Amino acid sequence: MQGQRNASVPSCSLQSWTEWTCEESKFQTIFNMDSREFRRRGKEMVDYIADYLDGIEGRPVYPDVEPGYLRALIPTTAPQEPETYEDIIRDIEKIIMPGVTHWHSPYFFAYFPTASSYPAMLADMLCGAIGCIGFSWAASPACTELETVMMDWLGKMLELPEAFLAGRAGEGGGVIQGSASEATLVALLAARTKMIRQLQAASPELTQAALMEKLVAYTSDQAHSSVERAGLIGGVKIKAIPSDGNYSMRAAALREALERDKAAGLIPFFVVVTLGTTSCCSFDNLLEVGPICNQEGVWLHIDAAYAGSAFICPEFRYLLNGVEFADSFNFNPHKWLLVNFDCSAMWVKKRTDLTEAFNMDPVYLRHSHQDSGLITDYRHWQIPLGRRFRSLKMWFVFRMYGVKGLQAYIRKHVKLSHEFESLVRQDPRFEICTEVILGLVCFRLKGSNQLNETLLQRINSAKKIHLVPCRLRDKFVLRFAVCSRTVESAHVQLAWEHIRDLASSVLRAEKE
Amino acid sequence: MQGQRNASVPSCSLQSWTEWTCEESKFQTIFNMDSREFRRRGKEMVDYIADYLDGIEGRPVYPDVEPGYLRALIPTTAPQEPETYEDIIRDIEKIIMPGVTHWHSPYFFAYFPTASSYPAMLADMLCGAIGCIGFSWAASPACTELETVMMDWLGKMLELPEAFLAGRAGEGGGVIQGSASEATLVALLAARTKMIRQLQAASPELTQAALMEKLVAYTSDQAHSSVERAGLIGGVKIKAIPSDGNYSMRAAALREALERDKAAGLIPFFVVVTLGTTSCCSFDNLLEVGPICNQEGVWLHIDAAYAGSAFICPEFRYLLNGVEFADSFNFNPHKWLLVNFDCSAMWVKKRTDLTEAFNMDPVYLRHSHQDSGLITDYRHWQIPLGRRFRSLKMWFVFRMYGVKGLQAYIRKHVKLSHEFESLVRQDPRFEICTEVILGLVCFRLKGSNQLNETLLQRINSAKKIHLVPCRLRDKFVLRFAVCSRTVESAHVQLAWEHIRDLASSVLRAEKE
Repeated sequence: MQGQRNASVPSCSLQSWTEWTCEESKFQTIFNMDSREFRRRGKEMVDYIADYLDGIEGRPVYPDVEPGYLRALIPTTAPQEPETYEDIIRDIEKIIMPGVTHWHSPYFFAYFPTASSYPAMLADMLCGAIGCIGFSWAASPACTELETVMMDWLGKMLELPEAFLAGRAGEGGGVIQGSASEATLVALLAARTKMIRQLQAASPELTQAALMEKLVAYTSDQAHSSVERAGLIGGVKIKAIPSDGNYSMRAAALREALERDKAAGLIPFFVVVTLGTTSCCSFDNLLEVGPICNQEGVWLHIDAAYAGSAFICPEFRYLLNGVEFADSFNFNPHKWLLVNFDCSAMWVKKRTDLTEAFNMDPVYLRHSHQDSGLITDYRHWQIPLGRRFRSLKMWFVFRMYGVKGLQAYIRKHVKLSHEFESLVRQDPRFEICTEVILGLVCFRLKGSNQLNETLLQRINSAKKIHLVPCRLRDKFVLRFAVCSRTVESAHVQLAWEHIRDLASSVLRAEKE
Repeated sequence: MQGQRNASVPSCSLQSWTEWTCEESKFQTIFNMDSREFRRRGKEMVDYIADYLDGIEGRPVYPDVEPGYLRALIPTTAPQEPETYEDIIRDIEKIIMPGVTHWHSPYFFAYFPTASSYPAMLADMLCGAIGCIGFSWAASPACTELETVMMDWLGKMLELPEAFLAGRAGEGGGVIQGSASEATLVALLAARTKMIRQLQAASPELTQAALMEKLVAYTSDQAHSSVERAGLIGGVKIKAIPSDGNYSMRAAALREALERDKAAGLIPFFVVVTLGTTSCCSFDNLLEVGPICNQEGVWLHIDAAYAGSAFICPEFRYLLNGVEFADSFNFNPHKWLLVNFDCSAMWVKKRTDLTEAFNMDPVYLRHSHQDSGLITDYRHWQIPLGRRFRSLKMWFVFRMYGVKGLQAYIRKHVKLSHEFESLVRQDPRFEICTEVILGLVCFRLKGSNQLNETLLQRINSAKKIHLVPCRLRDKFVLRFAVCSRTVESAHVQLAWEHIRDLASSVLRAEKE
């Protein structure tokens, strides 16, 4: 076989690699980050991290840089020779930090929270050191097995129906995805495959393309853009159901769309219900929509990316009522459950729906991989092949906080959002735009969109706090999301006083 | 708006959250992992990691556990009350480590390497602490900008054509994906959208579904399964081109398939060339295949997941010749370039091909997001929305090793694989199955597949070293991949002696 390589690809000769010995010994000399050095630098980094988080309140929450700022500060090519660690660590404050949006500042109220806790960081350090790539059971049994059990733990905290748990012999189970977007996509692909197989079993003459043209997925007009994107990637139609006055998808609107589309010869196959929308944390009516999906034989996926963490509290669990109608359910512990990104928790009732979705020949697969309650090959549950040992983060966080600690954390955030809400309500110039249920408050100045855009611009230019807006129907609305692990009542009060002062100034300017 | 919620969803009353004050103060008491405690525990973890990696040689490389081992060792539910850190850390050695496949043991020769280095681990600690979610430029400018510049640095190390670099005003650029599978999928989706738009521009009456039915993607029969999977997800046909005697995709076979399919009314739109296949590290003939793709107006994606890292060495750069024909190129620094998982580097010549692929209405997007050389919103380049600050790992590794240090590292591994190759060649009972070009040696006992399967089974049961097999045509072949950062000649020698001894025993048993 040797010597037969294509003429256009010159072979690497044996002579060449024997010359590298001197290079290699040089390598030993020039690079000295051995374990001894790591012990020193690692401990310095631990202190740097603690200092950073202890002092984060003192940094402007939003950076004061212009696009392209960083390129001017660093060389155009990588160095040929190694640099010292001191050089690099000095550049963190000089080059990186000035351009960081500090998501963990107690003055960060933008988007939704992203989780951060010390136990999760410790677990992530260990994850990096073990550095296994757990695509199959054999690639690192502990990585796969801890994930399955942690997903059961979390499922039980949420009081998920038994069917979603792996247990020792369940047909369902959980998996850690990288993001809610991936979970939605995986669910949509599984639903697509399942429906196409069902239809082809009944009518073998139908091609996949002919069927895909007729498949329709549905979601609320308030759903996250990743749902539309999943439809686009999967090559199927996706329709937005008009939500009601509370930004909630209801039975009537969904049923109308289903009937209209079926009458037109289309095939409904997938519905995404959102619990806690990105814009205003509204909830689709799962108890109404769920039974319709089951009657119609349509896959029901629940996206509770942000709100899901709250369901561990008994007083918020009602928001998940109807989950028993779903085929798949997802939320992001990396948002609000103190598990650092990434950790998006997804459960399915039938794991074979996922594992068969990605295979041309599921029968063959079923024989070569025993995807039973015991051996799980998570690579068949997700888009990527490789995967980190992310369940360590859940294990550390769940054990160090305990369920009670996690519940107390959620409650603290909800309390702070209600505190902000009542401050806003006391000021007659403002209005609350949607019911405050969890940690998000949607509010605005009574008046024009332009007025509110100006106010937001003033808020974000001042860089004392950071907010992002949303649009609710035709209204420009400000979102105040309780985000940081360390945010307290005092921060919320200061944020409100700051907003109120800027509002006064904006309103004065308007009158002049 | 308040008070209008669906009757089926009870409202969360204001009374309930005022009761949480006592819970909250309890939370402060029971949970005490503050920054002071983190400083202590973090430093202990640094030492644990250094101890683990210093002592990894002493652990059996492959775990001795049965499926389901872990569930029996831990409780069935999360604890209600917080546990102590001591409890958790004790369980690492008791519950986790017995089930870990030690990918960084110098006796691990399975799959391909996964990267691990101390500078990358330090950077990842910092990444976790900053904890920003860099989906857009504004979400953390440093996160986006460092990534763009690091991808330029790396592109220059590989001598990529200028068109792939972002520079200050380039049309191309790089992005960090989570895995090569995602990069292939993203490229396929971009190619699909581009081709459908072109065809619809010429024939507006054609529906997307009608076109998708005709689209065909091509790859070698040696390509990774993720390529077939990308086709399945994208809902397009994917055809395997028979490779030649060197497991290389050549012009003639590809041209034959293209002509046959075009004659049948199909539309070729995407070709994946593999540089360094998973089975045997063979190389498709890029210099032959590239011009065909360009002539046919077909998107060319290069998957060099493993081999790509070697292209930073001038003596291996020839393997990338022809990259100028490609539309997209990907390899995994998280395999062989000392950047811990995940870090899959992908470049495109036209960033708008990616950013427009995921949008129903690209014109609208073009207006609302200025995806110029200055402002990049990486969420439009990838499947997930969220993203970690992964470029910090590249920055630390490139600077602490320097290009010369990275080259020396690659060369050391290639040298060791040649060393193993020459040991195998000295034993007439064995054969080398494919040319050894980089760090992978494919070898087998001369004789039946059964014989080789028995040998592999003996090797992996002994747990002194760990290998995985592959199939090349009808032959069962053993793969010896140089993997660990700390593997030295002595480990390779010991591994060979061990394999040789087991082979003797297997051959003796066969004769009896």
